[in-house]
Amino acid sequence: MNKLLDQKSIETIRFLSADIVQKANSGHPGTPMGAASLAYILWTRFLKHNPSNPNWSNRDRFILSPGHASALLYSLLYLTGYDLSLEELKQFRQWESKTPGHPEYGLTPGVEVTTGPLGQGFSNGVGMAIAERWLASHYNQEDHEIIDHYTYAIVSDGDLQEGVASEAASLAGKLELGKLIYLYDSNKIQIEGSTELAFTEDVAKRFEAYRWQVLGPINGDDLDEVEAAILSAQKVTDRPSLIICKTHIGHGAPTKQDTASAHGEPLGESELNTAKQARNWPLDPFYIPEDVLAHMRQAVQRGKMLEQDWDRKWHKWKETNLVVASRFQNAMQGKLPDNWDQGLDSLFSADDEPIATRAASGKVINELAKNVHNLIGGSADLSPSTKTIIDGAGDFGPADYSGHNFHFGVREHAMGSIVNGLALHGGVIPYSATFMVFSDYMRPPIRLAALMGLRVIFIFTHDSIGLGEDGPTHQPVEHLLALRSIPNLTVFRPADATETAEAWRYAIENQHGPTSIVLSRQNLPVLDRSKLADASLAQKGGYILWESIDKPEVILISTGSEVHIALQAGRQLASKGIANRVVSMPSWEAFDKQSDSYKELVLPIHIRSRVAIEAAIPLGWEHYIGLDGAVVGLNHFGASAPAETLYQKFGIDVDHTVEKVLSVIENTRG
Amino acid sequence: MNKLLDQKSIETIRFLSADIVQKANSGHPGTPMGAASLAYILWTRFLKHNPSNPNWSNRDRFILSPGHASALLYSLLYLTGYDLSLEELKQFRQWESKTPGHPEYGLTPGVEVTTGPLGQGFSNGVGMAIAERWLASHYNQEDHEIIDHYTYAIVSDGDLQEGVASEAASLAGKLELGKLIYLYDSNKIQIEGSTELAFTEDVAKRFEAYRWQVLGPINGDDLDEVEAAILSAQKVTDRPSLIICKTHIGHGAPTKQDTASAHGEPLGESELNTAKQARNWPLDPFYIPEDVLAHMRQAVQRGKMLEQDWDRKWHKWKETNLVVASRFQNAMQGKLPDNWDQGLDSLFSADDEPIATRAASGKVINELAKNVHNLIGGSADLSPSTKTIIDGAGDFGPADYSGHNFHFGVREHAMGSIVNGLALHGGVIPYSATFMVFSDYMRPPIRLAALMGLRVIFIFTHDSIGLGEDGPTHQPVEHLLALRSIPNLTVFRPADATETAEAWRYAIENQHGPTSIVLSRQNLPVLDRSKLADASLAQKGGYILWESIDKPEVILISTGSEVHIALQAGRQLASKGIANRVVSMPSWEAFDKQSDSYKELVLPIHIRSRVAIEAAIPLGWEHYIGLDGAVVGLNHFGASAPAETLYQKFGIDVDHTVEKVLSVIENTRG
Repeated sequence: MNKLLDQKSIETIRFLSADIVQKANSGHPGTPMGAASLAYILWTRFLKHNPSNPNWSNRDRFILSPGHASALLYSLLYLTGYDLSLEELKQFRQWESKTPGHPEYGLTPGVEVTTGPLGQGFSNGVGMAIAERWLASHYNQEDHEIIDHYTYAIVSDGDLQEGVASEAASLAGKLELGKLIYLYDSNKIQIEGSTELAFTEDVAKRFEAYRWQVLGPINGDDLDEVEAAILSAQKVTDRPSLIICKTHIGHGAPTKQDTASAHGEPLGESELNTAKQARNWPLDPFYIPEDVLAHMRQAVQRGKMLEQDWDRKWHKWKETNLVVASRFQNAMQGKLPDNWDQGLDSLFSADDEPIATRAASGKVINELAKNVHNLIGGSADLSPSTKTIIDGAGDFGPADYSGHNFHFGVREHAMGSIVNGLALHGGVIPYSATFMVFSDYMRPPIRLAALMGLRVIFIFTHDSIGLGEDGPTHQPVEHLLALRSIPNLTVFRPADATETAEAWRYAIENQHGPTSIVLSRQNLPVLDRSKLADASLAQKGGYILWESIDKPEVILISTGSEVHIALQAGRQLASKGIANRVVSMPSWEAFDKQSDSYKELVLPIHIRSRVAIEAAIPLGWEHYIGLDGAVVGLNHFGASAPAETLYQKFGIDVDHTVEKVLSVIENTRG
Repeated sequence: MNKLLDQKSIETIRFLSADIVQKANSGHPGTPMGAASLAYILWTRFLKHNPSNPNWSNRDRFILSPGHASALLYSLLYLTGYDLSLEELKQFRQWESKTPGHPEYGLTPGVEVTTGPLGQGFSNGVGMAIAERWLASHYNQEDHEIIDHYTYAIVSDGDLQEGVASEAASLAGKLELGKLIYLYDSNKIQIEGSTELAFTEDVAKRFEAYRWQVLGPINGDDLDEVEAAILSAQKVTDRPSLIICKTHIGHGAPTKQDTASAHGEPLGESELNTAKQARNWPLDPFYIPEDVLAHMRQAVQRGKMLEQDWDRKWHKWKETNLVVASRFQNAMQGKLPDNWDQGLDSLFSADDEPIATRAASGKVINELAKNVHNLIGGSADLSPSTKTIIDGAGDFGPADYSGHNFHFGVREHAMGSIVNGLALHGGVIPYSATFMVFSDYMRPPIRLAALMGLRVIFIFTHDSIGLGEDGPTHQPVEHLLALRSIPNLTVFRPADATETAEAWRYAIENQHGPTSIVLSRQNLPVLDRSKLADASLAQKGGYILWESIDKPEVILISTGSEVHIALQAGRQLASKGIANRVVSMPSWEAFDKQSDSYKELVLPIHIRSRVAIEAAIPLGWEHYIGLDGAVVGLNHFGASAPAETLYQKFGIDVDHTVEKVLSVIENTRG
């Protein structure tokens, strides 16, 4: 090892990161400078990656959980030869650059995950490490370890304070994820000042309690200590490792090192120059010594060889395992097997007994699992209620990493972040499940799944006051709108079992964003498709389910369990001579994506008498009913009572719908 | 002590709880049966409360964090003589009963907090214990301990798995809340089965790491052990205590004890009867032995005496501390001092330099704090950015429990739950603060504050793409709608400093629900009220800020920073001969509460040409603009770039607004 070159490389990372921030006059120089040595050792001596192919399946995953330190990651990506130019580094935080304020998955080659909201990266890594174990147990054979990689992260004081990280850490310990190795950048500074202000817990002890191997505290600037610690981490295979590394935020900044002012704003030219002078460093911004670049760019050649070695193994394996190998390849590319949705169409019939859509979903999952071999997921301790167990597919855990069913514990937030990590890793199609009201506990990962465009399926059952006696703490009333508000999230609230199958079909095919399937606790009749529109139309988000013979003068629009009320009301109105149309609208997002002509067909602009029926707050429905329509819903929290009582007391029933339709017709006529 | 009577009392609690659930044919019998002995010891030997006056200021607080075990709490409230009849117990989970599925604050006398969503009660208790210390340090004098009580809770496996509890526990340890005593009902069962499935961490060690005193594991059914443990907990005054109590879910149920099936459904008559027979218990439902009732009802007399003692002390203290005493009394009753809002009107003027509404809010807070002495709050490690420090008012912590400023750490979720606990305790007016995008991390407590009708002020700064370079991970676009969706939460997004003062005025006066104040990162001009409508009109939620001389043919509606765009566009349109009105709509909720005539005045139904301008997703605005209007907003996530660039690239500017107005007029004319 050339210690001088090591130090020079680390200085390069530090000053390059600080220059990046200074040039943008915006950003966070402190953590890149403080964590540079950790990152350097990890990236040059351990990380198995191929800068020329950031998508190599068996690469080690690296997460920068404190995403505000993005300049560090961009420096590393540039120096190790990813497709990221120095020019891009100079465009840090500018419009359409590849170097946004926080790392963005899908935008910058080599960025494994979008980070910034603290605690998320930490928890995504647990998902990645789970995916690694799951795929390994399905595809590895003796001497053919197709999947066999580490998941590394740098995590910060802030990450460890977030509850989601606690949840994920506890689960990672339980799952014995030995190939998960986190470097804790312990710089003792947070935005308000010293961590002593709010964070005095014994982190080492806490992680030991989670059954992690805890190493350190080590001096994060002692390269040998860092290297030795990572080696020790690798040696323990049945526990995740946390390496506590003492570092200095703003390392080398003369007045700002070890202070909060190094955190979130550029050092300033004078401070930065003084720092450079103290290290005999040229003052030119973006100065990169040639020997450092040559040294770090060895990652390119090394990466190619690593992938080539793997490729050789892979091809040899493929020869004798053609079917499985092609399944693996398809899975990693996110492709579905042929006939993946076989059986879905014939799963339900109008002759069936009424069935809750959560139960229908359970049947769909089990049908899908026959062909979609990499469908995995579970619930935050509610699987008997969410109906999300794949029968006979085993529980994922140290005793059997091939199990499809996950027990996340009462940890909705980590569940969300972990399924994101599973999707980010690739090779699996993950779902999570809990009661809909608890979607609030996991909004940050839902948002990030939408932002990253991940195929994740968020199942939410007990979707309205229809859950009854558990009362307002458990009855979602605002959550449909709250979910519909998230860009790139598709919300599907099926009306019956047949639409539930369609919701799943949509979700599995929706490769570029998450889908939330929203399901009833209560039983619902299976719609008789011989007398109603075909269920496949649900793919369009909204469709004419039924209409009276005459040209409609009013449109009833509804979702989920209330579609049955709409249908009854529509038929009753027709019998009174009020020509009407009933639109089932399981997904606003899917409907809004249809052509203008289709939307006009379903909701002609001149028909202004429109009534929406949904057991939720009315807000948002004006998108479809405008100023002249009305909503049968509830503009307040629910209550504890049997579901039928609630529907009746809150006036979400056929009588009130008919009444409201008549008054809307009256008003729009007037 | 009469051990036989103790046991008989505990059996009574068990069977009464089981009967309550059985009668409703819905609910959770297992935990009430398992935790009966813990609750019995706590309530009969320790809890200082007055069943005749559930609002006595200095009562010990008791929280049932696993709210699904509500039957236990209702049994205790009935047996100890609260205003809750046996008839109400028989109406468990029925419409308009006082015994809903989960305990509801404000509905049932003696219920200190609405619980059910796990982890919340745990964290609310931390807030209550903080309030106790804060009030004690402000009002207690030697020999006159006006506030001096414990905060107790029963917490469950599920509570401890939730991240919010981890966050709150860490902070409680840091704050050395010695009068916080939690009984951990460790029954090793959760809904999916054994806790071994997902929860294998060493809880004792974890809480020791948080700097709690950990006692046990003890046998939760050994009354002496429980009593001794609580005594030990009381003795340590600088650390919160967690008492680990081994219990048996469904205690006494012949086949269901220690199984998940005792958790969430009635035992069934046969199982319940067998259990009663085994204990030689009469089979009659709701059987309560007279001696047990007499024994437990002693709480009434004891409670009266406790309050009388306190009252005597209080009156004596009052004599010599009239001003402070009356301040205390008002504070506990939620009353504001006279002239509490003095100075707000003159705080800002149109001559001021442009100022970010977050900075204006900082000034308002400091002005308010001069008169509103119990205004306390803080930020989740973002106070330099959220501008929420009360200057010179000290930091709350073990060194000074009288400090007004809180350092919550990077723990948004616990922050929300803790401010709820502060408000629940009473005596203080709490606020929290973080970036708006992180409102997602704290939605469960925001929802609960709204459900409970608490005066809590949630400050969210950096409220749009206006935050610029930090990019989409930090730019709220859907959060305004997501917050607006929550019933009984008032969202206020002021357009400038003057509206910011009004937002605060509204929030402080809003005693029956939380207010969220949504603030800009970027500077905004102070609106010139000599040329525009009076700022006080912001109290109405929406008002005509400006209009052209002629009768308007189009209305521009806007909030926050975009009001300035609307105003410029309106003036430009007027100069082009398009008569128009500009409505500032800082709060949809406040506006929607106005009289129909006021709403018609501001937004006349016949003017259908309406354009909303808000740097957020358009969904929801149709509530005001209908099917014929348009929104200048963004229907996707933001991006990393300087704020001005983003506004321009996304077309949220005067030119696009004018364009959109013209096209809307064109369409509605056509």
